[in-house]
Amino acid sequence: MLSFTHIEGCRLRQKGYYMENFSFYSPTCFVFGKDSEEKAGSLVKRFGGSKVLIHYGGGSVVRSGLLDRVKKSLDDKGIPHVELGGVKPNPRDGLVYEGIDLCKKENVDFILAVGGGSVIDSSKAIAAGVLYDGDFWDFYRGQWIEDALPVGTVLTIAAAGSEGSPDSVITREDGMFKRGASGDAIRPKFSILNPALTQTLPPYQTAAGITDIMAHLYERYLTNTEEVEVTDRLIEALLLTMVHEGPRVIADPDNYDARANIMWAGTMAHTNAVGVGRSQDWLSHTIEHELSALYDCAHGAGLAVTMPAVFTYEMSHNVMRFAQVAVRVWGCQMDFAHPEVTAKAGIEAFRNFLISIGMPKNFEELGAKEEDIPKLVDVLCNGDGRKGTISGFITLNEEECTEIYKMMV
Amino acid sequence: MLSFTHIEGCRLRQKGYYMENFSFYSPTCFVFGKDSEEKAGSLVKRFGGSKVLIHYGGGSVVRSGLLDRVKKSLDDKGIPHVELGGVKPNPRDGLVYEGIDLCKKENVDFILAVGGGSVIDSSKAIAAGVLYDGDFWDFYRGQWIEDALPVGTVLTIAAAGSEGSPDSVITREDGMFKRGASGDAIRPKFSILNPALTQTLPPYQTAAGITDIMAHLYERYLTNTEEVEVTDRLIEALLLTMVHEGPRVIADPDNYDARANIMWAGTMAHTNAVGVGRSQDWLSHTIEHELSALYDCAHGAGLAVTMPAVFTYEMSHNVMRFAQVAVRVWGCQMDFAHPEVTAKAGIEAFRNFLISIGMPKNFEELGAKEEDIPKLVDVLCNGDGRKGTISGFITLNEEECTEIYKMMV
Repeated sequence: MLSFTHIEGCRLRQKGYYMENFSFYSPTCFVFGKDSEEKAGSLVKRFGGSKVLIHYGGGSVVRSGLLDRVKKSLDDKGIPHVELGGVKPNPRDGLVYEGIDLCKKENVDFILAVGGGSVIDSSKAIAAGVLYDGDFWDFYRGQWIEDALPVGTVLTIAAAGSEGSPDSVITREDGMFKRGASGDAIRPKFSILNPALTQTLPPYQTAAGITDIMAHLYERYLTNTEEVEVTDRLIEALLLTMVHEGPRVIADPDNYDARANIMWAGTMAHTNAVGVGRSQDWLSHTIEHELSALYDCAHGAGLAVTMPAVFTYEMSHNVMRFAQVAVRVWGCQMDFAHPEVTAKAGIEAFRNFLISIGMPKNFEELGAKEEDIPKLVDVLCNGDGRKGTISGFITLNEEECTEIYKMMV
Repeated sequence: MLSFTHIEGCRLRQKGYYMENFSFYSPTCFVFGKDSEEKAGSLVKRFGGSKVLIHYGGGSVVRSGLLDRVKKSLDDKGIPHVELGGVKPNPRDGLVYEGIDLCKKENVDFILAVGGGSVIDSSKAIAAGVLYDGDFWDFYRGQWIEDALPVGTVLTIAAAGSEGSPDSVITREDGMFKRGASGDAIRPKFSILNPALTQTLPPYQTAAGITDIMAHLYERYLTNTEEVEVTDRLIEALLLTMVHEGPRVIADPDNYDARANIMWAGTMAHTNAVGVGRSQDWLSHTIEHELSALYDCAHGAGLAVTMPAVFTYEMSHNVMRFAQVAVRVWGCQMDFAHPEVTAKAGIEAFRNFLISIGMPKNFEELGAKEEDIPKLVDVLCNGDGRKGTISGFITLNEEECTEIYKMMV
């Protein structure tokens, strides 16, 4: 049986106030545009850094010359720096421990992430860990991050939105599960966004980024808090931007403007500027995390397979919401006699869009295996302190999660 | 003759990059919802205030008990405070000088604005003036504000967006002209937004606020920078919110949700989150400022009369942009053979919307006089250092400004 707690809560509120109280605080300084990485040194200085750890991933930032340009910018301002590369997609706790040790040994007081969401998330984990006496993993078990070294970013992939968010996701090597941590203290002090840096990304990674951005929007759209028109409209605005720019950038990877619109939409999608005043979902993210942890697939690719299944499962709990996004974003005609037909058409249109930009449509294309479903469900529902269920727009137990994974096969 | 500089500039850029480099920095902490004014004391403390000037307008914040609740919140945290009331709509420089003297005498280190845009703008001017050796009016002649006392706000009217902006507009009593000043230093440290506080506003003031918010969106929409879909869509999202919520709140002033959506849309309209990556207009504001300065009318009411005239005058310079907002926001059918018909229909739809919520439609209803036009144009084009023209989406000389004012008669 599904839990109807959220829906009942919504019904009970019908005579009260719908729009929930909130705080919105996004103090990150975004510096956007061509050659903006040249400002790294002056930005580190402005935000108080005097000894920097440059944290990055594989060789691409080395080969492209980006790392050298960033180092030169620091050198020009007389700011000493050490380096730690090797962050992998779905970043691991092992490298975080290494980074914390390095920062303590070298008296680092500022962390500069040069890369995508994985590098930024790893940097945030290190930043929180350096100032914490216990095991940094405590934060990924649910402890709010109160204090951290300042973090700055030079973004190379439009996807995760970590450049403007208070969140970080890390994979625990012992057990291979992904968990998130949050705190205003890990919001980047500045983020440098140069769309030209994303022009060399392979189409698959570009498409996975687009999917991740759209997931951040959908997760904020699926709610049972009514009457927050402003947030609905802002999310739809960013989804419409992705619908317009996504195919343009896949057809023409050098299109700077398409890259620029996607990059800024990706940042805005995740500062929570478009998520205030109500509950949110995040079940697709929760369910996907076990896929990318186990198979090391791109998070966005996992989401492309996960979202249509989750949405189809959730749809009956708020048909009009799914119909609304179908009409306003996907241009579906409203079937006033059968709103569920419109709702379903919107999910199909989204799925077809994801397939059209090159994303996988099922377990097989993703590289996942049906026989792993029991293992996936067990880690999902019982791993690291969970007690048999996961919650978002609705609450799901093991049986229901099994059914959702099976829909993806 | 009109200047075509901007349009030619646009044409020249067709082979280059359209989306312009930008910085976006909005570090204000927004605390939104019912009873949020109770957090004033703890927020002043969090942002380092130890002696507060409470700045406000007329008696309504006294009569409603809001001022007492704010003082109690400061008292509860042991924060001493002094007061300066009397801010008028279209705030004057005289009270600013008084506030600066009071702050210096009382060693105030934090300014708390309790009111609407006028109170906040006056507070920002005082905050900048206290730390400046010269005449604070220098900032309103164009000098960037580099330093200021921290400002916090408790907002009572959804309109000006000053609670999240780096801007302030003050009227110089000697000559009665309005001028603006800017600087990140005067962005509020926090802004408390309780939609319930706006429920007692008379319909005319509510409608004037709605108009001001929509003006802030249109001014950012009218541009010759192409290819910034993300900014277009975000502005349209907020305009659509106003189109939905405006009539609801006029019909039912106690509707908390309509008030809440309008309040947050008003803040988002003016942090510049929806204005990045391109040029903006602001000619309607510039042309209106002389009206509210001379007749002391509500700024929003002045904009309701000004915008349709200015837009009709500007339309031919970028017909497709006016057609786009007509289709996407006002639901006009696109006339593909005659886009100018659609563009014009969008301006008419906007004008009818403003009239429907109770705004004036011409000079007479606003209380302005045709015979004052030469005086208005002279102050507009030549006052306080200007040299015969004003610039935005297009550049206008005295003759053209005369024509625009005449269209409003």
